[in-house]
Amino acid sequence: MSRQDGDKSESTATETSAEDRLIATYFRPLATHPGAFDLADDAAAIAPPPGCDLVLTTDGVISGVHFFPEDPADAVARKALRINLSDLAAKGAAPLGFLLSIGLPAGLPADWLKSFARGLREDAEHYGCPLLGGDTDRSPAAITVYIAALGAVPHGGMVKRKGARPGDVVVATGTVGDAALGLVLRQDAAAAGRWQLDAAMRDHLSSRYLLPQPRTAIAEALRHHASAAMDVSDGLVGDLAKLCRASGVSADVAIADVPLSPAAREVVAAEPALIETILTGGDDFEVIATVAPDRLEALRREAVAAGVTITRIGTVRAGQGAHFRDADGRALVFRRPSYSHF
Amino acid sequence: MSRQDGDKSESTATETSAEDRLIATYFRPLATHPGAFDLADDAAAIAPPPGCDLVLTTDGVISGVHFFPEDPADAVARKALRINLSDLAAKGAAPLGFLLSIGLPAGLPADWLKSFARGLREDAEHYGCPLLGGDTDRSPAAITVYIAALGAVPHGGMVKRKGARPGDVVVATGTVGDAALGLVLRQDAAAAGRWQLDAAMRDHLSSRYLLPQPRTAIAEALRHHASAAMDVSDGLVGDLAKLCRASGVSADVAIADVPLSPAAREVVAAEPALIETILTGGDDFEVIATVAPDRLEALRREAVAAGVTITRIGTVRAGQGAHFRDADGRALVFRRPSYSHF
Repeated sequence: MSRQDGDKSESTATETSAEDRLIATYFRPLATHPGAFDLADDAAAIAPPPGCDLVLTTDGVISGVHFFPEDPADAVARKALRINLSDLAAKGAAPLGFLLSIGLPAGLPADWLKSFARGLREDAEHYGCPLLGGDTDRSPAAITVYIAALGAVPHGGMVKRKGARPGDVVVATGTVGDAALGLVLRQDAAAAGRWQLDAAMRDHLSSRYLLPQPRTAIAEALRHHASAAMDVSDGLVGDLAKLCRASGVSADVAIADVPLSPAAREVVAAEPALIETILTGGDDFEVIATVAPDRLEALRREAVAAGVTITRIGTVRAGQGAHFRDADGRALVFRRPSYSHF
Repeated sequence: MSRQDGDKSESTATETSAEDRLIATYFRPLATHPGAFDLADDAAAIAPPPGCDLVLTTDGVISGVHFFPEDPADAVARKALRINLSDLAAKGAAPLGFLLSIGLPAGLPADWLKSFARGLREDAEHYGCPLLGGDTDRSPAAITVYIAALGAVPHGGMVKRKGARPGDVVVATGTVGDAALGLVLRQDAAAAGRWQLDAAMRDHLSSRYLLPQPRTAIAEALRHHASAAMDVSDGLVGDLAKLCRASGVSADVAIADVPLSPAAREVVAAEPALIETILTGGDDFEVIATVAPDRLEALRREAVAAGVTITRIGTVRAGQGAHFRDADGRALVFRRPSYSHF
């Protein structure tokens, strides 16, 4: 601290900090909502759509846990946002915006944040989900990216885990297990050889791990037709069991009906035991939903029109638990039905 | 993976994961809002109060950055929630609820999470801000606690950083600098001796670092009377400069008018240079606001009725920057006017 006479101090009191400059440079361009106040206030203010409920979710990614430190920064940003958009979509909600809390260790490459912000901006624009505010901190070691996302549904319209009824059909979007196999490929360089995958199949699995595809396009169709829904983040087996538990029902799934990509089919042909990884590995970010039989075709039609495939994988029954049966009707028991951090 | 005939698989498919049990045991009791669905869904749904804007903010604490790893877990939880409540209060918003994202390293003492949840529950109840949802992850090293808080103001009523007008009075709540001195005490065991503080004064400074006191009680008064406001998290000097920048004005502050606790006054008497720590150290979580002169008494009266002291510390003028002057009218220049993580 020094003392000076008169007005010589102006310079210090008007200067911005490195943190403020970082926010202004990289994140202000994402804050396109007027209620974000160009990130130059302590909070955002938004007028909720009249007659709507707010749908709130939060999910984060941590380097070394949810992504590899060497993953492209723009993909890290997209993954962090998309896993939250996936939750909103499964709940039938249209995105309103998000808050970002990011912890950055010292020593990141100079262009890391630039790439991160670019990926986040492109996805925020693509999915119509602007940055509303955030918090930027120095982190001791890991890169941490937490997002809290805000969406809207007509009042009372959130699609819940609770709501599946005996007789409903169980459906899944897209294909299951690709991301879990993509993670195996990242961790075990020999796997691609054992599985005899061509380059396109390897790329498919790897990109499904790196970049979830949130099913935002069918949020409205789910709201119109699904009796219950959730996104699959911790594995199909465990997540369907959670949906059943919340609804007080059971589900029977024929494993042969679970939609697999051509790459995943190759993997299972080469190494049949990996069906467990496919069904329990997680990071799918597909939607599982239950739907009354007379609504199935409407759901499927609206989903296809939105560019999303819907596959019938099973049936809801009275009882407890999610039962996965092979072609002979035998139930499979999994070592670890669901991903758990603890 | 094993195969079994018939229905022997039920047990695995109905079991909950360790993560689910952790959430149910420690966090479900905090999720008192019906729209939190007992934390058994992917998202929360809440009907916003009619005619209101939502006020959204997020702030986190990381062990080794914002708190000491040995700090009591209940205090860590309270700090994480209170720094967000402080933002809502400064914006004139009433809390609606919060989302929690917590990253826990392996090897935490068994009762850490129990104590954390207890502190969070007590504060959530005290401040009327229920847990709406969250995300629980394994963290590689640091304990990370991010909170996104949601509040409400009448439409258009958020108190912004922008809005201070020349001629307005600058006020601050409570006392400034205690938390920064409390941090010095934590880092420099000899400081208490140099400063000749008694035990009560040491405790005062330490507790102000450990447990912010968000000024939620004056949120409504700020909304009625303040032309601009923000909470002081990065130091009075830098934060007042931010408010001035957002409003396009300057502020003159007489350092002698800045409210100090008896403990802080003792410290300055013993070590005058520490006025810089007091004015720039941050972690105050007091509110600075600007108010038209004819509203000052009403603001002060309502604040006192709510148990919060308000002190006039300066005046808003045309120009740029926040100017802090000593008793002789000389401006002080600070090495680092504001806390910055970068």
